[in-house]
Amino acid sequence: MAKKGVFIALEGSEGAGKTTVLSHLKEVFPSFVFTREPGGTPYAEELRALMLDSEYAKDADGLTQLLLMNAARRDHLRHKVIPSLKEGKHVITDRFVASSWAYNICGQERKDLSSFFKELYLQVVEEWEPDIYIFLDLPVEIGIKRRQGAGEENHFDTRKIDFHKRVYDGYKEFLSGVPHIKVDASQSKEKVLADVEALVREECSK
Amino acid sequence: MAKKGVFIALEGSEGAGKTTVLSHLKEVFPSFVFTREPGGTPYAEELRALMLDSEYAKDADGLTQLLLMNAARRDHLRHKVIPSLKEGKHVITDRFVASSWAYNICGQERKDLSSFFKELYLQVVEEWEPDIYIFLDLPVEIGIKRRQGAGEENHFDTRKIDFHKRVYDGYKEFLSGVPHIKVDASQSKEKVLADVEALVREECSK
Repeated sequence: MAKKGVFIALEGSEGAGKTTVLSHLKEVFPSFVFTREPGGTPYAEELRALMLDSEYAKDADGLTQLLLMNAARRDHLRHKVIPSLKEGKHVITDRFVASSWAYNICGQERKDLSSFFKELYLQVVEEWEPDIYIFLDLPVEIGIKRRQGAGEENHFDTRKIDFHKRVYDGYKEFLSGVPHIKVDASQSKEKVLADVEALVREECSK
Repeated sequence: MAKKGVFIALEGSEGAGKTTVLSHLKEVFPSFVFTREPGGTPYAEELRALMLDSEYAKDADGLTQLLLMNAARRDHLRHKVIPSLKEGKHVITDRFVASSWAYNICGQERKDLSSFFKELYLQVVEEWEPDIYIFLDLPVEIGIKRRQGAGEENHFDTRKIDFHKRVYDGYKEFLSGVPHIKVDASQSKEKVLADVEALVREECSK
């Protein structure tokens, strides 16, 4: 059976407003399947809890994290994304492979794992790549100021700013190799929501 | 720092008496580090629980299982096996990569994942291969009869026997490429224990 639905991955840099955009899209496109990574299926959500909440997770090295992330991704694809697309439903995922590249490889400074990352990608994703990545693009300094303004972080030390810069550059690098559209997230909230909504409409009417 | 301890992996086919042998070795070599896969560290044990006890685990495909197993292995190696060997301690693990090959690849009939399996092996294990695999070798038919005699299984259907045969052949295949010794597990319990004990002594006095 051929693929019928459209598969969209939503990604965003620090403070770019991904959560707000997703809320809006859920309202505007109620028939779409909204999902997230890591997670999206019961088993992958169990893995997500282990990755994000286990007291031992902080001691897991980049390779351990990458393997867990891809185990969760495989389950998510097999049991949710692929069946939904085959049923003709459009799927929007909150994060996908671009985030793994940005965080696990670039953020963690594990470029030595680059070729293994690609091998994993091929095995796990097979032909089920997103039709398009939509990237909420916001320079790191502005994103951090927004977070500070929202009181979510009291301070960002230099190490943390460097980390977010590596993540941001990682996104740009990954996206340059796949179908993607960048949305200027420094615009007003209304303009960002309208831009993303229009892009999704266009992509799903092709 | 160079490796100092000896790293031994104990493997066995169905009903070969691995548990009994391990109890004996723990008694005879109290200074050794005894560990197991999947598991061996707090994080890897959390993963083991997810792999063996989660109600969703049965729906995970061979690739998902393989990635989880190797995430657990990576944590186990980094936080337990390697530090112990570096401290000069001898380490005996209950199962290692041979079991992954036998169960995940051969048992599950996923030979299509062979080259990816090798890539994973190189990334995850690096140079920390066991100095020796000790394999408790028992023909499948005898192992199954033993289990039935112990009342652990009421019946083995044909599908299950075929599975154990594939696993058994998988062990033989994997071991042919690594340092290993087979112990005839059809001998008396006393003879098997004495044989394995002597092998471990010899390996650790080299």
